[in-house]
Amino acid sequence: MARTLTVGAAQLGPIQRSDTRKQVVRRLIELLREAHARNCKLVVYPELALTTFFPRWMMEGQAEVDAFFERAMPNADVQPLFDEARRLGIGFHLGYAELAEQEGRTRRFNTAILVDPNGDFVGKYRKIHLPGHAEYEPQRPFQHLEKRYFEVGDLGWPVWRAFGGIVGMCICNDRRWPETFRVMGLKGVELVVCGFNTPEFNASMVEPGHHRMMHHFLSVQSGAYQNGTWVVAVAKAGMEEGCMLHGGTCVAAPSGELVAVASTLGDELLAYTMDLDATAPIKNTIFNFARHRRVEHYGIIVEQTGAIPPP
Amino acid sequence: MARTLTVGAAQLGPIQRSDTRKQVVRRLIELLREAHARNCKLVVYPELALTTFFPRWMMEGQAEVDAFFERAMPNADVQPLFDEARRLGIGFHLGYAELAEQEGRTRRFNTAILVDPNGDFVGKYRKIHLPGHAEYEPQRPFQHLEKRYFEVGDLGWPVWRAFGGIVGMCICNDRRWPETFRVMGLKGVELVVCGFNTPEFNASMVEPGHHRMMHHFLSVQSGAYQNGTWVVAVAKAGMEEGCMLHGGTCVAAPSGELVAVASTLGDELLAYTMDLDATAPIKNTIFNFARHRRVEHYGIIVEQTGAIPPP
Repeated sequence: MARTLTVGAAQLGPIQRSDTRKQVVRRLIELLREAHARNCKLVVYPELALTTFFPRWMMEGQAEVDAFFERAMPNADVQPLFDEARRLGIGFHLGYAELAEQEGRTRRFNTAILVDPNGDFVGKYRKIHLPGHAEYEPQRPFQHLEKRYFEVGDLGWPVWRAFGGIVGMCICNDRRWPETFRVMGLKGVELVVCGFNTPEFNASMVEPGHHRMMHHFLSVQSGAYQNGTWVVAVAKAGMEEGCMLHGGTCVAAPSGELVAVASTLGDELLAYTMDLDATAPIKNTIFNFARHRRVEHYGIIVEQTGAIPPP
Repeated sequence: MARTLTVGAAQLGPIQRSDTRKQVVRRLIELLREAHARNCKLVVYPELALTTFFPRWMMEGQAEVDAFFERAMPNADVQPLFDEARRLGIGFHLGYAELAEQEGRTRRFNTAILVDPNGDFVGKYRKIHLPGHAEYEPQRPFQHLEKRYFEVGDLGWPVWRAFGGIVGMCICNDRRWPETFRVMGLKGVELVVCGFNTPEFNASMVEPGHHRMMHHFLSVQSGAYQNGTWVVAVAKAGMEEGCMLHGGTCVAAPSGELVAVASTLGDELLAYTMDLDATAPIKNTIFNFARHRRVEHYGIIVEQTGAIPPP
């Protein structure tokens, strides 16, 4: 019997700063209901799905920053999503800014959770590859202060048996790094879910605009192919506080092929039925790691962080 | 002053078993002369460029196998290529089967060399990711016995200062593995040259035919982008001994974009002028390894060879 799973990639249009969490949760629930009508068992929401992408602003006051963080999950604003998902028997993946009291101090992470159709927590992931910068950069039209507002995730890339397969998570910039997918690939991952907020304009360099979407697809497709896994990547999209997010919510098959792509920059549910067993042909042949990987030649990948050109 | 380099990707059409090395070297020299006329300073030939792709056959006798190997490089058959390249002031990359007397025994590698415009050796690479299998598999229309006829390369992935930049090599199946590019990326590589012989039909699994070329491009483009390096990948192409090689000689920019692709399945010179400084914007921003890599979470990539799913 094929291990099929219908996933709803729940792209969000922009969230403005004035939008309340209650308003956003209503949109999430709307997409959840559409997903239910379309037979989905798992709904994937974007990174930082409860608020606008606040790292675009330099904020001096910690209280102003912390207003974008969740101190508990669920909390009163988000509880209706948890309730409705359980009622409908749908699991979900949700990204949010997490404020945690941990090891005697306040810690802040760019976090995602996976919740099963019974409403139970499957697992949590905290973003490891934080892009951007930590200090104000006046030449940028928008800041990208993830390195200021978040700590590097401390949970690695776990995978879990859930939704009939082996599921892992990553967030936004993580998808550009082959290390992200390889770590989960080595744990047999069959489905990677990934939310993102990617600006259309890259303020750190001059590049043709179409490269942005190409880089997104290239990263997702190569991560899928090179590990024989499904990838569902879900955007926050559209014009958010004057900053255009490029969208491109998509599903990549274990072959690396793009098999579904959203067509709008707004709230849009992309429902796709995948066969988790379609991971096996790639995992057992071209990317049979046990047969083909040569770790004795990979040491530098872990031993060395930055590039060191020859003298 | 821009560091421009004009590279000739010298795709070869098929080499049949009955073709002699002398005949093949004449074709290589023909392409070299065209490259010279088109201002190339480096010519990249395919993997195993002197003979047919012999791992498609099961051969019991070692003498029969060894007839496809070179015991010295250059040797009498190949010397005319070295001579003409030096005369024209062009460097080259050449793949061949290498038989080496080393550590008191006979060793066989799938090898490539890099020779500078003065005719001096820059370096040697021995293929690490050998695809295929070691034992005869009767269900295959063609064998892929690289694991039988070659040892795993023992030189790692060095890079060299050459041709005005930092150059590295890999061979065929190596390009599918992000580890290959990352190891060289960590050494600051600006140009990776890669020869390949890739059959259109994958005998190890059932897959749509168009996936083969997609996988090739996906691997090359992601390796380029994720390390901010130029990649020149050069095919042996066309119908060789009844086995179709899919071609697809190409140049990928450090942006990941395909900027040149061969249009035939025969001997074809693809000349492309690249700016080696175009690697810097990617290396200094999105893939600034020192700023963004988190090696503390990558350990499993080196510690574990095969995939181990959760219990």
